[in-house]
Amino acid sequence: MPDRFVLILAGGRGERFWPWSTPARPKQLLPLASGGRTLIAATVERAARVAPLERIVVLTARDLVDAVRRECPAGVQVVGEPAGRNTAPAIGAAAVWFAAEAPEASFAVMPSDHAIDRAADFTADLERAFGYAEREAALVTFGIPPTGPETNLGYVKRGMRVGERLYRVAQFTEKPDREAAEGYLATGLFSWNAGIFVWRSRVFLDALEASRPAIAAPLRALAQGTRGPGFDARWDAAFPALESISVDYAVLEKAPNVFVLEASFDWDDLGSWGAWARRQPRDGDGNVLHGDAVAVQCRRCVVVGEGGTAAALGLEDMVVVHVNGSTLACRLDQTDQVRKVTETVRARSRGGPS
Amino acid sequence: MPDRFVLILAGGRGERFWPWSTPARPKQLLPLASGGRTLIAATVERAARVAPLERIVVLTARDLVDAVRRECPAGVQVVGEPAGRNTAPAIGAAAVWFAAEAPEASFAVMPSDHAIDRAADFTADLERAFGYAEREAALVTFGIPPTGPETNLGYVKRGMRVGERLYRVAQFTEKPDREAAEGYLATGLFSWNAGIFVWRSRVFLDALEASRPAIAAPLRALAQGTRGPGFDARWDAAFPALESISVDYAVLEKAPNVFVLEASFDWDDLGSWGAWARRQPRDGDGNVLHGDAVAVQCRRCVVVGEGGTAAALGLEDMVVVHVNGSTLACRLDQTDQVRKVTETVRARSRGGPS
Repeated sequence: MPDRFVLILAGGRGERFWPWSTPARPKQLLPLASGGRTLIAATVERAARVAPLERIVVLTARDLVDAVRRECPAGVQVVGEPAGRNTAPAIGAAAVWFAAEAPEASFAVMPSDHAIDRAADFTADLERAFGYAEREAALVTFGIPPTGPETNLGYVKRGMRVGERLYRVAQFTEKPDREAAEGYLATGLFSWNAGIFVWRSRVFLDALEASRPAIAAPLRALAQGTRGPGFDARWDAAFPALESISVDYAVLEKAPNVFVLEASFDWDDLGSWGAWARRQPRDGDGNVLHGDAVAVQCRRCVVVGEGGTAAALGLEDMVVVHVNGSTLACRLDQTDQVRKVTETVRARSRGGPS
Repeated sequence: MPDRFVLILAGGRGERFWPWSTPARPKQLLPLASGGRTLIAATVERAARVAPLERIVVLTARDLVDAVRRECPAGVQVVGEPAGRNTAPAIGAAAVWFAAEAPEASFAVMPSDHAIDRAADFTADLERAFGYAEREAALVTFGIPPTGPETNLGYVKRGMRVGERLYRVAQFTEKPDREAAEGYLATGLFSWNAGIFVWRSRVFLDALEASRPAIAAPLRALAQGTRGPGFDARWDAAFPALESISVDYAVLEKAPNVFVLEASFDWDDLGSWGAWARRQPRDGDGNVLHGDAVAVQCRRCVVVGEGGTAAALGLEDMVVVHVNGSTLACRLDQTDQVRKVTETVRARSRGGPS
């Protein structure tokens, strides 16, 4: 029986769901998953299909630890990062902890803020990835068949086929502009990078050591696990000093043994109000009405009222949201730019120019 | 010295300013007048320029009496209507009270929810109207030079000229449709009916007696004034039984001695968010930002945040309002249809179909 673990990354702030999302309750803590569950709770449930609860670690921001822990069953460890350092240091730390617990440990990395409904397909794909990663010393990523020229996601280009839906990675790319994204789709060789990874701890640490020794070395000092005496002090001292860098850039773009498994499960990054609305039921005029919402003579609008009435009159293709005592109105095709609003709101609250 | 009084009508519900206006705080109680005063307070100030405070009566809905009284200086009488009966019974009651106090009483009728800034011009026009009404036993109305084919106002057609800016009324009209309104403007003979009237109590009561004796007779029983013993009981018994009808329809369209004075003062009925916004300062992109309001990449938008942040992103010619814990979004050219929203919200709160 292989020693399988799961690392769930739950440190994001998910500002594009403002005003629903707030710094204290980012996207992964919103009830955006099917059945009204939070995304983090749904992620832990999926993780529990491939690893025992005691072998699941959730990394999040320190101020979110309590809120995240309330969404997790007993046994799951929730560890707070003293400072955000992107994914490479976080995954490296988990690799060290898991290897200390089981020398042949392998683990899956799962973002906490995506929606996946077909859990059986997800589990089957994960099992395949674990098997391949354990057998071939491979770094396995998941590719999502793209449904459009998305500019808010990274892409993976498939190389040589090595098995059913399984390929060598030819290239990782950052978030492209619209034109580049359309070019990727035209080739038929690119998948979205879902940020889901499977590998053995030692294989990952070897790759990290090779590409970023300055990150790998301090993490060794944390090898005694997350619950031993003095862990907090060592963790607080070591982690914030690490380079802040993504695992894609630090490791995957450089390692020779990276593979991509084309996902057979559904996947949605729920990156915006518009993405969320696509999964909601609509009325006869194509409107999504959620909570205390009124739409008069509207078509294809998204109206959300929580803690107050949200009313739209005579609009088309608009989002009108009243949540957490704040209001947002924008066009449905601009919900991926809501961060511009949160930046302005933040600047105002700091006393900057309005 | 003539015996001059003022009746201020403050019973309206002003739903087009939802969600700023609510049943408990309708338009006349909002700080929409210049200098941040409520419209009712500004109206009382104007009234006090033509009559002593003790000769000003404000009629409002019973549940609004306390809120209205807080906006009035001591001396002004605030009387609650046990039920709304439109303007003819209200003005008839006031005519009876004023005549009981001073047999030769004359009075002005003023709506409480319009904006008038040039108080000196207003006072001068009122003095002229009082003089003419007292001298000629005339029913004097005020006409506002129209600036567009407004469909939410009644119109007055001027007949024979009898003095500077003073005419016999040829015709009163109800709120017209767009085509009719444009026809009125083309003739150059129509003014907006501002609902401001001046007349002697006895002249008005004679006209009411002639056209609606069933309204005039019961009001005689209330002649002892508004503060005598037993007034409340008699008022509560008599008033709700009266026919609900406007003074225009009950009296002015039928009386032979009706005149219109073209106003020399500014006037705005502030009939909608759009009308309000036209009087507000704008930023460099033409946006009106009020309270806790954020507009990112917006042009010619109205964004209002009270008790919470209102944010608009990438919009043009839109209204986004967050007030009293509710949100409204609509196009700037549709703010005169906000009543459709309040009707829907009311139907929902009664448990009707949503």
